[in-house]
Amino acid sequence: MQSARKTSRSSSLDTLFLSASDITHILACKGLGACLAGMADYIRDDFLRWPDFEKSARTASHSAQGVIELMPVADAHSYSFKYVNGHPGNYRFGLPTVMAFGVLADVATGVPRLVSELTLTTALRTAATSALAARALARPASRSMALIGNGAQSEFQALAFHHLLGIESLRLFDIDTAATAKLMRNLRGQGMEIAACNSATEAVRGADIVTTITADKTRATILTPEMIAAGVHINAVGGDCPGKTELHADILRAASVFVEYEPQTRGEGEIQQMPLSFPVTELWQVLNGSAAGRRYAEEITVFDSVGFALEDYAALRFMRNAAEELGVGQPLDLIPALADPKNLFALLDPATTTAQLKGVRAA
Amino acid sequence: MQSARKTSRSSSLDTLFLSASDITHILACKGLGACLAGMADYIRDDFLRWPDFEKSARTASHSAQGVIELMPVADAHSYSFKYVNGHPGNYRFGLPTVMAFGVLADVATGVPRLVSELTLTTALRTAATSALAARALARPASRSMALIGNGAQSEFQALAFHHLLGIESLRLFDIDTAATAKLMRNLRGQGMEIAACNSATEAVRGADIVTTITADKTRATILTPEMIAAGVHINAVGGDCPGKTELHADILRAASVFVEYEPQTRGEGEIQQMPLSFPVTELWQVLNGSAAGRRYAEEITVFDSVGFALEDYAALRFMRNAAEELGVGQPLDLIPALADPKNLFALLDPATTTAQLKGVRAA
Repeated sequence: MQSARKTSRSSSLDTLFLSASDITHILACKGLGACLAGMADYIRDDFLRWPDFEKSARTASHSAQGVIELMPVADAHSYSFKYVNGHPGNYRFGLPTVMAFGVLADVATGVPRLVSELTLTTALRTAATSALAARALARPASRSMALIGNGAQSEFQALAFHHLLGIESLRLFDIDTAATAKLMRNLRGQGMEIAACNSATEAVRGADIVTTITADKTRATILTPEMIAAGVHINAVGGDCPGKTELHADILRAASVFVEYEPQTRGEGEIQQMPLSFPVTELWQVLNGSAAGRRYAEEITVFDSVGFALEDYAALRFMRNAAEELGVGQPLDLIPALADPKNLFALLDPATTTAQLKGVRAA
Repeated sequence: MQSARKTSRSSSLDTLFLSASDITHILACKGLGACLAGMADYIRDDFLRWPDFEKSARTASHSAQGVIELMPVADAHSYSFKYVNGHPGNYRFGLPTVMAFGVLADVATGVPRLVSELTLTTALRTAATSALAARALARPASRSMALIGNGAQSEFQALAFHHLLGIESLRLFDIDTAATAKLMRNLRGQGMEIAACNSATEAVRGADIVTTITADKTRATILTPEMIAAGVHINAVGGDCPGKTELHADILRAASVFVEYEPQTRGEGEIQQMPLSFPVTELWQVLNGSAAGRRYAEEITVFDSVGFALEDYAALRFMRNAAEELGVGQPLDLIPALADPKNLFALLDPATTTAQLKGVRAA
């Protein structure tokens, strides 16, 4: 078998595979802070090219246990998509809530050039996008952040805000105290002052930025209006599909709300609670200066993040370039190469098959 | 590097990878006729469970050169999707017009269980679906077929109709005579009588079944009404996206038209030429006996095939089971396994990283 596979692999098209351990290796080599900063730059660059992209709301397949989504996006040169799930009960089976992988392909030919893990990468790109938005929306002197929801993505949010915004103080809350303890352990030695709090109210008190990143697929009310002081920036990450929200609607009414891609966020974000006439601003317009971000110090700003395909496009570009730089990754025998492209059947040619089988026997 | 990867691979979740050469090996071991017949059975079984599936028209990203599509479908247990392109000019770069791969995942958890090549498999499943439809729609005594378009998928159509319907005589036409010569070479020794014709009109003359499977992304008119005799079954495979058709509209008006999934075919199939009120019957209803197939010998029937996600779901199931039976395939380090599912960050733990790097240095 091994020989047959090797023989054919050398004649397969050039698809690079980045495994979960390849991505871990890239992060270890380059450092997490540098990767978060680099990825934020890639995301900003692609958001600044917003009109170049063919965009659509992701397609979602909902079940009682969770959701599986496909997130495609393309410009004139590259097409990307991400497969991602969201299953809040997965911890019961020892599985992550969110798992993902993605593909970069050539628009001109349709050849898939890269297949990459995105479980770890999604945590980075979500955090990098949050920090990118907060740089435009939070008060410049912000130094403290409340972090409500201390699950798998919380370390990445904490470190993105530390490295990209200079957040020095964290106030943590999760209904699962073990999750908070885990987050504190993981952030030890990262140069932040960290306090575990007994309630969301306590965590939010005095924080410049409030990040909500809880997993339950319900209409939760993690934050209520009386908890939110003037001038706070809310980074609302957890509410990201129909029926899954974290903020009381009155917070949205009192705030300026920023989104990634309005047609998708209307159905999935916190603003699914609001009428379609509720005004929002797309982040790319703030980044390119065509729309205002924060207008005054007392303004309450909300980044209603749901995760948009363009962030994965940017993340895949970042990882592909990092992999090339470091020589990481393996070829994947995904698409057969053909001597005559109209002769797919030649793959089954008895002569070829016999040669392959001889290779197998010899191995 | 190698050691780091091996260490982590053993702790990744259980995703099976079936490469292009694995699928070739499965076809060589089981035989193409048996695979076409087996796959047709799987497709029929899944079409008979039609109401169990969450269905949607595929999402398509069109460019000047072609199209890239994602085709998801799910029942209560399994989710599948296919990535597939269609680039008629790809032969100029030595690349196949159609390339594909797909995934089977668990609905309960979102874990991707199978990643498989589908370039070769798509050719099989399209042909198996065509033959399945023709068994219900063509005259039972059909023995001859015209095959217009002799490209990469034509051998599979010919052999599916030979093995599943008893087609003994083929009449071939392609504007590229080299494609026809290639098809004749590939079908040598398969027990069919084969004639190369100088025009579509000549090929169609006297044929019981007419299969059109051309690649150009245009409003072509491969078949006109005067070419079509009473009682013929037309297997119209090539017209499968907006702006890509093969039949004159008057053929559709004179025929009974059968489709896979009406909401998708209205936009992509031959019937994109017709008003929305034009009547069609979904194939699954014919297969389960709730709608009539062919009603009388002189009736002209058209299977307006565009390719539906459920066929790929069935094809992936078939290949997974064949791979298990034959012990084919490799684990893919796509999703990291975590000791604590809420502790994704542990993948980056300095201790783990150090151990991995030591492994690298030792290797």
